[in-house]
Amino acid sequence: MAETNKMYIPTIDDVLAAHSRIQPYIHKTPVLTSKYMDQLTGAELFFKCENFQKAGVFKARGASNAVFGLADDKVEKGVATHSSGNHALSLSYAAGRRGISCTVVMPRTAPDAKKAAVRGYGGKVVECEPSTSSREAVFAEVVAESGADFVHPYNDHRVIEGQGTCSLELHEEVGPLDAVIAPIGGGGMVSGTCLTMSNISPSTKIYAAEPKNADDAYRSFKAGYIIADDAPQTIADGLKVPLKDLTWHFVSNHVEDILLATEQEIIDAMYLIWQRMKIVMEPSSAVPLATIIKNKELFAGKRVGVIVTGGNVDLKKLPWMGL
Amino acid sequence: MAETNKMYIPTIDDVLAAHSRIQPYIHKTPVLTSKYMDQLTGAELFFKCENFQKAGVFKARGASNAVFGLADDKVEKGVATHSSGNHALSLSYAAGRRGISCTVVMPRTAPDAKKAAVRGYGGKVVECEPSTSSREAVFAEVVAESGADFVHPYNDHRVIEGQGTCSLELHEEVGPLDAVIAPIGGGGMVSGTCLTMSNISPSTKIYAAEPKNADDAYRSFKAGYIIADDAPQTIADGLKVPLKDLTWHFVSNHVEDILLATEQEIIDAMYLIWQRMKIVMEPSSAVPLATIIKNKELFAGKRVGVIVTGGNVDLKKLPWMGL
Repeated sequence: MAETNKMYIPTIDDVLAAHSRIQPYIHKTPVLTSKYMDQLTGAELFFKCENFQKAGVFKARGASNAVFGLADDKVEKGVATHSSGNHALSLSYAAGRRGISCTVVMPRTAPDAKKAAVRGYGGKVVECEPSTSSREAVFAEVVAESGADFVHPYNDHRVIEGQGTCSLELHEEVGPLDAVIAPIGGGGMVSGTCLTMSNISPSTKIYAAEPKNADDAYRSFKAGYIIADDAPQTIADGLKVPLKDLTWHFVSNHVEDILLATEQEIIDAMYLIWQRMKIVMEPSSAVPLATIIKNKELFAGKRVGVIVTGGNVDLKKLPWMGL
Repeated sequence: MAETNKMYIPTIDDVLAAHSRIQPYIHKTPVLTSKYMDQLTGAELFFKCENFQKAGVFKARGASNAVFGLADDKVEKGVATHSSGNHALSLSYAAGRRGISCTVVMPRTAPDAKKAAVRGYGGKVVECEPSTSSREAVFAEVVAESGADFVHPYNDHRVIEGQGTCSLELHEEVGPLDAVIAPIGGGGMVSGTCLTMSNISPSTKIYAAEPKNADDAYRSFKAGYIIADDAPQTIADGLKVPLKDLTWHFVSNHVEDILLATEQEIIDAMYLIWQRMKIVMEPSSAVPLATIIKNKELFAGKRVGVIVTGGNVDLKKLPWMGL
């Protein structure tokens, strides 16, 4: 394993090593089932609940793998990233557990609650203007000054190895699955799922679920090359980012299909999960169920793993308020 | 066990028999822990999540015990109750599973969603005026006509035996506890908890948690006799009903203390559980945590079971909306 080569293509052995490495710092999250959802879809669904994960999101896996895999001589300079969302939280969480510094570049317009949450885990917030040029300039400065190790939210083999531990646990708990479906933004969770399942259960089909309003992965998949959109608008705010070369490798090689859902379909599926399964999860996490409901023929009679990616949502601004 | 004598005082053997009887029809609900909540309270908390129970509430246990314990010659006439809430849902669920009829008398002013949910489980709704006299008259008519077996929401030994299976599972899963705390309305869950714990773990203290706005159980407990309020107003709408003779027996003999929480304390605790533990639960279910937070000295350093009683809440009318 080449720690410093971020374009290294990870193997299943890396996923297994990641799992041993991060187990003390992550939850083995529960798998929930629901008769109601099974009757609704005609499939047998196994919901892997990463909303119960540390930091409230699967990204604690990849971040913990990067942080705890850091060589001793790199520890002192800490880690850094740019993210206004779940990766910022997760990296701060993992760095806090290892007791190393973590700097996160966030737009000054990001919600105060998000900044406070990063600081709550011991992370340092450096603000930039809400533009790509400012973010890149400020981030370059942070790294030049601190020498911190950059942990990309998804285009980083250490992160993908960590995300791959999620479907590893799912497979171990429920046995062979006909399909696994996860939401896709940058493709970190989908890549980890491809990496793990293509090795331990090659007959399991991997589906990715994407908002129609941010369908760049879908269009990339159909075109055969990466198409990146500039700031698509969707309620599933974790899924706005584009594929990158390392995640494209996995998506283009292992994904069976990418399925789309409209904003209303996402909201409806989210409401249904909250109401029937009594769990708090993000709009992004509802996209898979939304696509299963509208593509029943693909999943009927099948055993399907559904990755519920996270639960970090503003409870005071739920999408069905005012409906 | 005297099936027809509703004032029979049940024993631990009845709880064990109830557990074997209802296991095929209920979930063994998960026990969740939270480092954040432990740090906040100084206690070690074990949340028994009955919000994940069938029908979304612990009452599926008692209702299933009553329905599946029904003698064959009583099956044909079915069961009946009056309730506009969780007991109505639970009894309909259980009756539906056994394939017998279930009639629920509900005020015509009850939310349509509640009536629809009862019908969804196969229950029959008979409407009454929203007054005690109308409810009693209509209910007497239903029973006279149908000969159905009346399953009271809590003042019924079969129901209490069923509720007692919840702490049985909790104790089996996490081992000896210093205390168990549950919300109190009519006292069905608290009575079942007393029945079970006083037998299998007599050193475990039982606390009941009650809204200050509906503190009739608290005042009864202090006075030494039942005090019943007429229609108290609290956001914890499952906890408005008074103690009755059978639940008073358990509460007066086995409860260590009854702790109170204000409406705002209940809302704050509910928000905290949703935000940090990512579970959907009712205001009633937040009363125990609210009282633990304000009585930290009672629980610090202790292993405490917390019964999360249910998750049936109107997602479009959450109490912090507009805060």
